[in-house]
Amino acid sequence: MPLRLDSQSADFADRFRSFLSVKREASQDVEQTVRGIIEAVISRGDEALKEFTAKFDRIDVAKIGLRVSAAEIDAAEKACDKDALAALKLARDRIEAYHLRQKPKAEERFTDALGVELGAKWTAIEAVGLYVPGGTAAYPSSVLMNAVPAKVAGCPRLVMVVPSPDGKLAPLVLAAAKLAGVDEVYRVGGAQAVAALAYGTETIAPVAKIVGPGNAYVAAAKRLVFGKVGIDMIAGPSEVLILADKTGNPDWIAADLLAQAEHDTSAQSILITDSPELATDVEKAVESQLKTLPRADVASASWRDFGAIILVPKLADAVPLVDRLAPEHLEIAAVDAEALTAKIRNAGAIFIGAHTPEAIGDYVAGSNHVLPTARSARFSSGLNVLDFMKRTSLLKCGPEQLRALGPAAIALGEAEGLGAHARSVAIRLNL
Amino acid sequence: MPLRLDSQSADFADRFRSFLSVKREASQDVEQTVRGIIEAVISRGDEALKEFTAKFDRIDVAKIGLRVSAAEIDAAEKACDKDALAALKLARDRIEAYHLRQKPKAEERFTDALGVELGAKWTAIEAVGLYVPGGTAAYPSSVLMNAVPAKVAGCPRLVMVVPSPDGKLAPLVLAAAKLAGVDEVYRVGGAQAVAALAYGTETIAPVAKIVGPGNAYVAAAKRLVFGKVGIDMIAGPSEVLILADKTGNPDWIAADLLAQAEHDTSAQSILITDSPELATDVEKAVESQLKTLPRADVASASWRDFGAIILVPKLADAVPLVDRLAPEHLEIAAVDAEALTAKIRNAGAIFIGAHTPEAIGDYVAGSNHVLPTARSARFSSGLNVLDFMKRTSLLKCGPEQLRALGPAAIALGEAEGLGAHARSVAIRLNL
Repeated sequence: MPLRLDSQSADFADRFRSFLSVKREASQDVEQTVRGIIEAVISRGDEALKEFTAKFDRIDVAKIGLRVSAAEIDAAEKACDKDALAALKLARDRIEAYHLRQKPKAEERFTDALGVELGAKWTAIEAVGLYVPGGTAAYPSSVLMNAVPAKVAGCPRLVMVVPSPDGKLAPLVLAAAKLAGVDEVYRVGGAQAVAALAYGTETIAPVAKIVGPGNAYVAAAKRLVFGKVGIDMIAGPSEVLILADKTGNPDWIAADLLAQAEHDTSAQSILITDSPELATDVEKAVESQLKTLPRADVASASWRDFGAIILVPKLADAVPLVDRLAPEHLEIAAVDAEALTAKIRNAGAIFIGAHTPEAIGDYVAGSNHVLPTARSARFSSGLNVLDFMKRTSLLKCGPEQLRALGPAAIALGEAEGLGAHARSVAIRLNL
Repeated sequence: MPLRLDSQSADFADRFRSFLSVKREASQDVEQTVRGIIEAVISRGDEALKEFTAKFDRIDVAKIGLRVSAAEIDAAEKACDKDALAALKLARDRIEAYHLRQKPKAEERFTDALGVELGAKWTAIEAVGLYVPGGTAAYPSSVLMNAVPAKVAGCPRLVMVVPSPDGKLAPLVLAAAKLAGVDEVYRVGGAQAVAALAYGTETIAPVAKIVGPGNAYVAAAKRLVFGKVGIDMIAGPSEVLILADKTGNPDWIAADLLAQAEHDTSAQSILITDSPELATDVEKAVESQLKTLPRADVASASWRDFGAIILVPKLADAVPLVDRLAPEHLEIAAVDAEALTAKIRNAGAIFIGAHTPEAIGDYVAGSNHVLPTARSARFSSGLNVLDFMKRTSLLKCGPEQLRALGPAAIALGEAEGLGAHARSVAIRLNL
C-alpha cells in the first residue's frame, strides 16, 4: 500500500517531512574498488581495460577490438525493427529542433558608456564522453537525449562507451549512436570506461567532460574523476508527481504512476489531489492495471514502498509541497493547469494537461528526458545545450577606459592588501 | 627561476606535457575530520556550531550571537575607508549591469508544426549560501562577485557565512554584503558553516546551493554535501597566461605576472611570446619589481616554482598550447589580439589588448572574477547568473498532438521493454 497523507491532519507537517527524507537508493560503498580500477587504467591503459573487460563482461577485446567498427554499427542498424527505427529518427529530429533553440550566440559584446567593451563568447567542449549502461538498462532514447545536445552544441568529438556483457550490444543503441552523430564507440563499461575517458589510454584519447547514467561503480568513478574532467549530475532513481483535480481520469493517472514505477523498485510515483474520490479511484485503477503489466513485479514494489497519495483542500495548496519535493517530472491534470504551472518553482519538467503523459516527453516531444532527481530540481536543470558549452568572458579597455576605471581598481587592490594588483594598473597610468 | 621552454626544441612536446601535469596544490586529506564535523552539525545543530566556533575561532557565539546584526553591519560600513567604499559601490553597479544581460527570459514557449507547445521556464534558486573566508583572504570584491549575480538572478534568500577569528570581521566585507543585498550574515566558518547551510540548524535555515571559495576543509565539506545541495566549482590556485608579441611592454607584463603571483605561493604566471627579447626583458622586469613589492615573498616563490616563459615562432602557434593550458585568465598584448581571441577555445576570461590588465576585471569591469582554474576552462565557465537559476522544461499536448506523436512513443516504449510507458500513451488513444 502506498503512503496516504492528508494535509489537513494534525501530524501532516511531521509526516511530510519524514516522507521528504526517505532514502530510496541504497548507497553502496564501492569507492575503494573504484579507486583501484582508476589507478590501474591510469598506469596500464589498454592492458587494464582488456583485463577488466575480460573479468566483468567475459569478452576479449584484444581479439575483437575495443572500438566498435562502422561496419558493425551499420549491421546493427539493419537488424533493427523498422517501426522502432522510424520512431527513433522522429525522436532525433525533434530533439535536435528543440535543442537548437537553446544554442547561445557565439559571441555577445557590448560597449558601455565609458567605452569599455564587455561580453562573452560561447564555445563547445572539445571532446565529450557518453556513458551508456549495458544489459536491460541500455536505452536508445537516452543515447539520443545525451548525444544530440552535444552535437547541437558543436562538440567536435563525441565518444560513447558501452559495456557488451558476453559480447552483446543492443542494435537500437548502436543505431541511436549513429543517428545522433556519435564519433567513436568503444565496448567497455564500468569504472574502467570512465577512467579511460578521463585519463585516456593508447586507444581511447581523453575527453574533457563525461555524461550519462550508470550504476554505483560508474557514479563513484564519475565523482572521483570530477575536476580532471567535467561531469553531469549523478542520476538517482526516477520520480513523477501528478497533480490532479476531480476532472482527472483515474485510469490515465494510474497508467502514468505505473510508467514511472516500472523503471526501478526505487522509482517513486506520487499523486496529489483535492478529490478524495479521485484518490480512491486511482488507487483501484493502479491495482487493476498491475494485473496485466509485464513489469508488474518491479512496478508494484516501487508503488508499495515509495508511492504516495496526498490529499489537499485545494490544488493551489499543493504548490509549496511540490516545491519542497522538487520532482523530476510533474504532470498537471487539472482545469487550471497553466495557472499552477506558473506558480511552481522547483520541478525538472512540467507536463501540462491531461493529454501530456510523461512518456511523450521521455521519447518524442523533443525536450530532454535527462532531468534532476532526488530533489535536485531545487538547484539544477535538465540536460541542455549549455551543458556542452562554456563561456569565456571578454574585456577590452583602451587607455581612456583604463584611466576612468583604474583609480577604483587601485583603491580596491590596496584595500585588499594586494599591492601588485594595484601596481599593475598604476604602472600603465604612470601613477 | 621560472621554467623556460621553446616550442622549437626537440623535447618540447614531452616538457610541455609534464608542465601541464604539475600539481600546484598539496591535496590535504581532511575528509574524515570533515565527515565528523558535518555529522555533529546534523545531529546537534547550533550546539555543535557553538563548540566548533569556540574551538577554531576562539569566540562564544552563544554570548555574542551567531547572526551578525544589522547594527553591526551599519557600524562596519561607517568604519570603512571612504575611497575603498566608493570603489566598492562602483564595482557593485558595474557587476550588476554586466550580469543583468545574462538573465534569461522568465519563460520561452513555442508551438511546433503539430501544435505541440514546448519550452522552458527559468526560476531563481530559492535560497543560496555564500561562503566567505576569514582572515587575510577575506576579499570584499569576492563578496560582490558571488552575491550580486545571485540577487540579479532573483534569489529571494542569500545567506553569508564568514568566520570571525578572535571576533574579527573585515569591515569592507560586511559593507560589501550590505551593498550586494545579502539577507543574512552568520559568524561561522569552516566545514561547520557548510554543514549548517546544507542541513540547517535551529538558527540557520538550510539553503539549496552553496557557493564561494574556502580552504581544504571547506572544499571537502562542499564535496560531501553535494547532492543534498548544489555547489559551485571547487576553486584551485589562480593563474594567468599572457600572450605577447614584441610590442608588449615588459614592465606592464611583469606587473601583471606578479599581480597573479602575489595571490598565493601556488599561483601560476605564464608568458608565451614570439619575441626572445621580450622574454628576457620581462624576466628582468620581474626581478626588479619584486624588490619593492609588499608581498614579494609570496610572489617570488610562486614565480620561481610555477612561473614559465614559453617561446613560439609566431603567436598563432601558441593557440593550441593555450587551449591545452585552458588558463583561468588570458591576457593578450599583441597587435592581432582580436584575431587571437577569436581562435581560443579554452579560457575563463580573455583580457584583450595591453590596456586591459587582469586587475581591472578582478575589481571593477563588471565581468565576474570567479573563473575556472586548474584547466577546468576546458569544460566549465565563470560564475554567472545561470548558476543561480534553473530551467524547468514545459510540454503541452492536446488530443490531436498526442495522436500524432503517440504511436512513435509507443513503439519506443515497447522497444525498450517498458510496457507501462507504452500503455500510458495507448490508454489515452484507446489503442
